[in-house]
Amino acid sequence: MKRYEQLAEEISHQIAARVLRVGDRLPSVRQASQAHRVSRGTVLRAYYALEDRGEIRTRPRSGYYVTPPRAAVPPRPLPTRPSTATRSVDVRDFVFEVLEAITARDTVPFGSAFPSPELFPLQKLASAMSSATRRLDPRDMVEHLPPGLPELRRQIARRYLQVGMSVDPDDIVITAGALEALNLSLRAVAGPGDVIAIECPSFYAALDAIERYGMKAVEVPTDPSDGVNLGALADALKKHKVKACWLMTNFQNPVGSSIPEDRKRDLIELLASHEVPLIEDDVYADLYFGENPPKPAKAFDKRGLVLHCGSFSKCLAPGYRIGWTYAGRYARKLDREKLMTTITTSIPTQAAIAQYLGRGGYDHHLRTLRRTLEESQEHMRQRIVRDFPQGTRLSRPEGGYFLWVELPPHYDAVAIYRAALEQKITMLPGPVFSPQRKFTNFLRLNYGMKWTSALDDAMAALGKIVSESRA
Amino acid sequence: MKRYEQLAEEISHQIAARVLRVGDRLPSVRQASQAHRVSRGTVLRAYYALEDRGEIRTRPRSGYYVTPPRAAVPPRPLPTRPSTATRSVDVRDFVFEVLEAITARDTVPFGSAFPSPELFPLQKLASAMSSATRRLDPRDMVEHLPPGLPELRRQIARRYLQVGMSVDPDDIVITAGALEALNLSLRAVAGPGDVIAIECPSFYAALDAIERYGMKAVEVPTDPSDGVNLGALADALKKHKVKACWLMTNFQNPVGSSIPEDRKRDLIELLASHEVPLIEDDVYADLYFGENPPKPAKAFDKRGLVLHCGSFSKCLAPGYRIGWTYAGRYARKLDREKLMTTITTSIPTQAAIAQYLGRGGYDHHLRTLRRTLEESQEHMRQRIVRDFPQGTRLSRPEGGYFLWVELPPHYDAVAIYRAALEQKITMLPGPVFSPQRKFTNFLRLNYGMKWTSALDDAMAALGKIVSESRA
Repeated sequence: MKRYEQLAEEISHQIAARVLRVGDRLPSVRQASQAHRVSRGTVLRAYYALEDRGEIRTRPRSGYYVTPPRAAVPPRPLPTRPSTATRSVDVRDFVFEVLEAITARDTVPFGSAFPSPELFPLQKLASAMSSATRRLDPRDMVEHLPPGLPELRRQIARRYLQVGMSVDPDDIVITAGALEALNLSLRAVAGPGDVIAIECPSFYAALDAIERYGMKAVEVPTDPSDGVNLGALADALKKHKVKACWLMTNFQNPVGSSIPEDRKRDLIELLASHEVPLIEDDVYADLYFGENPPKPAKAFDKRGLVLHCGSFSKCLAPGYRIGWTYAGRYARKLDREKLMTTITTSIPTQAAIAQYLGRGGYDHHLRTLRRTLEESQEHMRQRIVRDFPQGTRLSRPEGGYFLWVELPPHYDAVAIYRAALEQKITMLPGPVFSPQRKFTNFLRLNYGMKWTSALDDAMAALGKIVSESRA
Repeated sequence: MKRYEQLAEEISHQIAARVLRVGDRLPSVRQASQAHRVSRGTVLRAYYALEDRGEIRTRPRSGYYVTPPRAAVPPRPLPTRPSTATRSVDVRDFVFEVLEAITARDTVPFGSAFPSPELFPLQKLASAMSSATRRLDPRDMVEHLPPGLPELRRQIARRYLQVGMSVDPDDIVITAGALEALNLSLRAVAGPGDVIAIECPSFYAALDAIERYGMKAVEVPTDPSDGVNLGALADALKKHKVKACWLMTNFQNPVGSSIPEDRKRDLIELLASHEVPLIEDDVYADLYFGENPPKPAKAFDKRGLVLHCGSFSKCLAPGYRIGWTYAGRYARKLDREKLMTTITTSIPTQAAIAQYLGRGGYDHHLRTLRRTLEESQEHMRQRIVRDFPQGTRLSRPEGGYFLWVELPPHYDAVAIYRAALEQKITMLPGPVFSPQRKFTNFLRLNYGMKWTSALDDAMAALGKIVSESRA
């Protein structure tokens, strides 16, 4: 046994003996090198080996941490296999029933669409709002119609530099949150009767937009690990006259998948060969747990076919309702859709976000937020492993704040949702993510909050509700 | 000649001799009674006589003012006579071309959709924004989805008391300005293929919404004085399967008509007898020049068929984008449309408007604003009388900030619009208000600004452009 293997075994024993417990930080490479009198290279190889075995994981600029025991890591849900036919969508009423039920203030918000507001720098935003509003030129109130305040568009363009993208601010259209961005984008590229390719399962608001505008959906199989199946998408593009594609490329809602970079490039080539525009819903991109931000598919788009939609609602300021589309050649078309539906986005709010971004501190906030989300995911996973039925499968998203839970067959997510609601615990049942209300044994759980023992208790109670639902 | 007639003649002479000039305030009744040693009743009768002759006009809580000489009052444009067939709408591209051209900062804004921002209490709003944002509960950020912040809905409900309407705040849905309110309302009551009865001419955004959702329009003749022709509307309701009606009942845009109260009652009865809902666009209601606020048609609605849409964009804070629908039985349907298109309206902005309204001062601001608008209308009318071609007809709206100008036949509004734009003077040409681009010899002019000699010069220049356009 090599020295690094010995060291790895030692550490593994400490974990098994709970000397090192789940969530604990391992000694730094320098400390371990001194303590064990081995080279730093040996420590690193040992840590890498443990990481490969899933016993520890790295956290950028922070160190190595103990993960839950391997036996406790449940498999991911299987890739989906939807019908290849196009479908009209009929899920509205059920979605509304659920969404309306989960907003009550005194519930445990595992069903919420947003991270907990306590995770946002609301006082700093309020200060930016105050100073920005006082400094607005009165003419800003009536003259900055779409595409939106120049300074905010410039700040957003600057953020694209972090993933190596050089963006012209004039190609960005500011919207009232990402949902408006997505709706405007859809309207800019498709009309009634058109076929839209979507993931399966899919974000319920995408389903609703397709229904609202009289379009049809074709669902493409999606792997909870690496996203939409390109072979199946190619088949769909051959079989149907697909007018546009609507996908979440990073930390897909609900399954948590991210399309690897190479495959994003392939996706763009595939769509370009059919001249099919992509509406890229990328609102969770800034919530990555890895070392580097994931690139959007838009980064590989040479033909200007991608409408890249982002938002500050998930990572900075949900109630402010500021999103955008980096729309490229569709920008002027979006301007018009915007002008004729909501005219412009609240000017003081745009100015406040621009001011906050200009002051700096956003990246610092994001680092803290990501760490909180990653830790809370771990806590929620542990409770599911401990308290949910044997045979439960579980997504392992590397960003965002949703877990996608596949219960064994014959568990009824809607019945569980209703039973949990009676105990004031919310969640989203799988069927809201399907045009035909499938995914009847799936739950989406939000872990986007600072973990507390009360949340831990709520998860235990939820485990009990789930288990007893089969009694 | 009776004493009051003598007094009226004396004052009339003073006006003719320009001792009293247009816009001057007459002595109060008490002052005049003392000065002329007549009873107050005599003064009042004299003033009434002068008012009947159009030489002076009353302004509530302010006094009597000299109006332009009667000879200078051009007739109103004639009632419209559109085809009775339903129409698909095809005016989008032209409307956009115009709207995009008129937002440039260095132009004279007779084409603007808003009053000048200098007329709004922007510093008081900024102060309300600052304090409201700091006081927001973090949970307000994610939990007040539609219908919107309770305090703002309560303040809006309170304002309905001014026209004697008792409104449940829960029947109000807050929107991103009135345009979103109107769009959501239309979607709540009609779908693709449905026929919508509208005025002729009609607000271009109504035309665009009907086009966007694949609906059809039937245009109803509209009188520039008292609005939509009820007989013609009754015919349209008999002839077509009208799914909804979209009307501006007060200070219609562009013609400036207001439906008298009795006729509003008749309108509601007519629509109720056909079970046709009314989308009532009432965004100019607070800008009345008379003594009392005009009632909306909604005030007479016993069946809950009216969706009453209002806004703060025209009279308080255009860039804030806060509007509402008092939707009654359609409120929950609107909530859903809103949730699925823009989720909610900017929370800090809602809180700021609620705070501003709660502090008081809004009615004082409105009184000042109305007076400014009324005076500026007078100034603009005078320039039109002086500088526009013989045979020009002109609306006489008793509120709002638009004049509707009918040039003699064969004047080309679009050519005039283009020539004026070259001299950096904007306006809206008539064809943007018609599905078939009619009203080719009409202009809509915005007088919503504090009148200056520069504006007077711009009107003179415009008169020259108009006159020379026929050379």
